[in-house]
Formats: sequence, structure tokens, C-alpha cells
Amino acid sequence: MLVLGVDPGLAITGWALVDGERGRLRLVQAGCWRTPAGADQGTRLLQLWDSLGGLLQAGGPASVAMERLFFSRNTSSAMAVSQARGVLVCAVAKAKLPLFEYTPAEVKQSVTGSGSAGKVQVARMVRLILGPTVPPGPDDLTDACAVGICHQHAAGLRGAVAGSSRR
Amino acid sequence: MLVLGVDPGLAITGWALVDGERGRLRLVQAGCWRTPAGADQGTRLLQLWDSLGGLLQAGGPASVAMERLFFSRNTSSAMAVSQARGVLVCAVAKAKLPLFEYTPAEVKQSVTGSGSAGKVQVARMVRLILGPTVPPGPDDLTDACAVGICHQHAAGLRGAVAGSSRR
Repeated sequence: MLVLGVDPGLAITGWALVDGERGRLRLVQAGCWRTPAGADQGTRLLQLWDSLGGLLQAGGPASVAMERLFFSRNTSSAMAVSQARGVLVCAVAKAKLPLFEYTPAEVKQSVTGSGSAGKVQVARMVRLILGPTVPPGPDDLTDACAVGICHQHAAGLRGAVAGSSRR
Repeated sequence: MLVLGVDPGLAITGWALVDGERGRLRLVQAGCWRTPAGADQGTRLLQLWDSLGGLLQAGGPASVAMERLFFSRNTSSAMAVSQARGVLVCAVAKAKLPLFEYTPAEVKQSVTGSGSAGKVQVARMVRLILGPTVPPGPDDLTDACAVGICHQHAAGLRGAVAGSSRR
């Protein structure tokens, strides 16, 4: 099952196409979309819309996974991320693909075994799980891989549960 | 000049097409888009995208005005509104229309003369300025009218300044 993991942001959005099954995951492709800080927000949001729309058409994932947003403080950056996330969620709906959401703790737990793991630990485990095909890049890229891995693990688990209940 | 004022929200988005010039404003049409609380967020955001896209094509405004978001507390509803707003801002950019933003205080100041006016006062002044064509409806509808009026006032002021500097 091919899954797209997305780490939303206005300035930079990470994305990762993760294929395979539990224990045999591989990275098909990953990258970041960056929008120019000097451009107005509409232009930047439309770039995100077009980027994700293009990838969903070309990349052919069966589903999309994103982290739920949590902010401990109320900042303008939280609202900027939320706006970007809204556009990305809408683009997934436009492409008629199912969206799966996981809390940051669920993603960390799934990838590292600890719900309170730090960014460095998550990035290290992502590279261990997916191997040397993970390109160098910012946290946004490895975070997108992480949510993709988390969804693969969760889907594998759901499949195992469904299989055992059919027996 | 025909202006579309928008008051964004996930559950309910107010909109108002306000035409004319300062002192001679009239409401062309106004309403609310509601999305079902039981539906998933992608479906709801896509409904907003389609609703605004359709109105921009059919209604033909020259520009769109929205309030800037400010939240005193960090709530999940602030993030839901931000996600909806991101989709609406993106739809305006997709339609290649200019977006103008005003702070809540600027809108209140422009419509009532006081930047700290309450919702009831804003709604009353909206009905005084635009007359009996304002349909009955929730605050979202009169707030959309208010930001449309504010943009008309601001545009009139910009026009007057540009005119006097050309003399």
C-alpha cells in the first residue's frame, strides 16, 4: 500500500511516499515544498494546493496521513500552519482520497517506541526504518516520513486485527 | 466597485456582496455557507472551497475582503477557523482576485466609529448603512457585510488620497 505522509507548514511542507508493509517499508520518494516568504499568503497557499494536487495525481498514493495539530501557545505561526493545513486537507478531499490523522505522540510512539521522543531520535529511527534512500533534508522531511511510517504500522495492525477476527 | 466581504468559519461562513461608493453603499446579495458538523473536515473544507469558487465565478466581485484572525486563547476552534480561512484565501488566489485584510478593530471602527464596538452595535450599523436589504441571519452574515463596508470605505479613502495627490 502506497501512503503519502505530509508535515504541513506555510514556509515548508514535508512529504514522503512510503510503500510496503510493517517491517518491510521503503521510501519511494520524499521532498519539501517551500513557499517564498516575501509572497502574499494567497500565492503561497495556492502553491501548496497545486503542489499537493500534482503529487496526488502523479504519485498515486492510496491514502494520506497527517499529524493532528497541537499548539501549546497561541502564535501567529500556529494560525499560518493551520491555514496551510486546511488547504492541504482540502486538496486531499478534492482528490477523493482518505485522510488519516495521528497525534504527535502516536507518531513518535509508532516510529521510536516512545511517545515523548525528540526530533533527532525520530529522524534517526526514520533513517533506520527506511534506509539510506531517505534524502538529506530538514525535520519537515523526516517528520513526513515518520507520519507515513506510523500510518503504515497502524494500517498493518488494523489489517492483522481484521484478519484474526475473520478466523 | 463590487466587493465580497467574507467572515470565515468551518461550521458557518458569512458572505456579502457590497456594491457602490462611500455613503452610497448597497447590498447586492448576502448569505451563509454551513457545513455539516457530522462530516469529516476534508469534506467540509471542500464544500467551502466549492462554494466560494462558485460565487467568485458567478458574482464577479473586483476584490475580496476578510478580517485578520486574532485569538486570545489557543483553542481547537481557532485552528478549525484558520483551516477554513486558509481554504478561502487559497480560493481567492485561485480566482486571481486581490484579497484585502482588516483587523477586527479596523472593521468596527470603519462601520460604527468605535474600534471596540460590540457585535450588536456592528449589526445595527450594518443595517443602517445597507438598509432593509440585509436579510435576517446570524452575526456571521452581518460581520461579512461589515468587512465589505470597511473595504469600501478604505478603498474610497485610498481613491480620495490618490486623487488629491494627482492635483
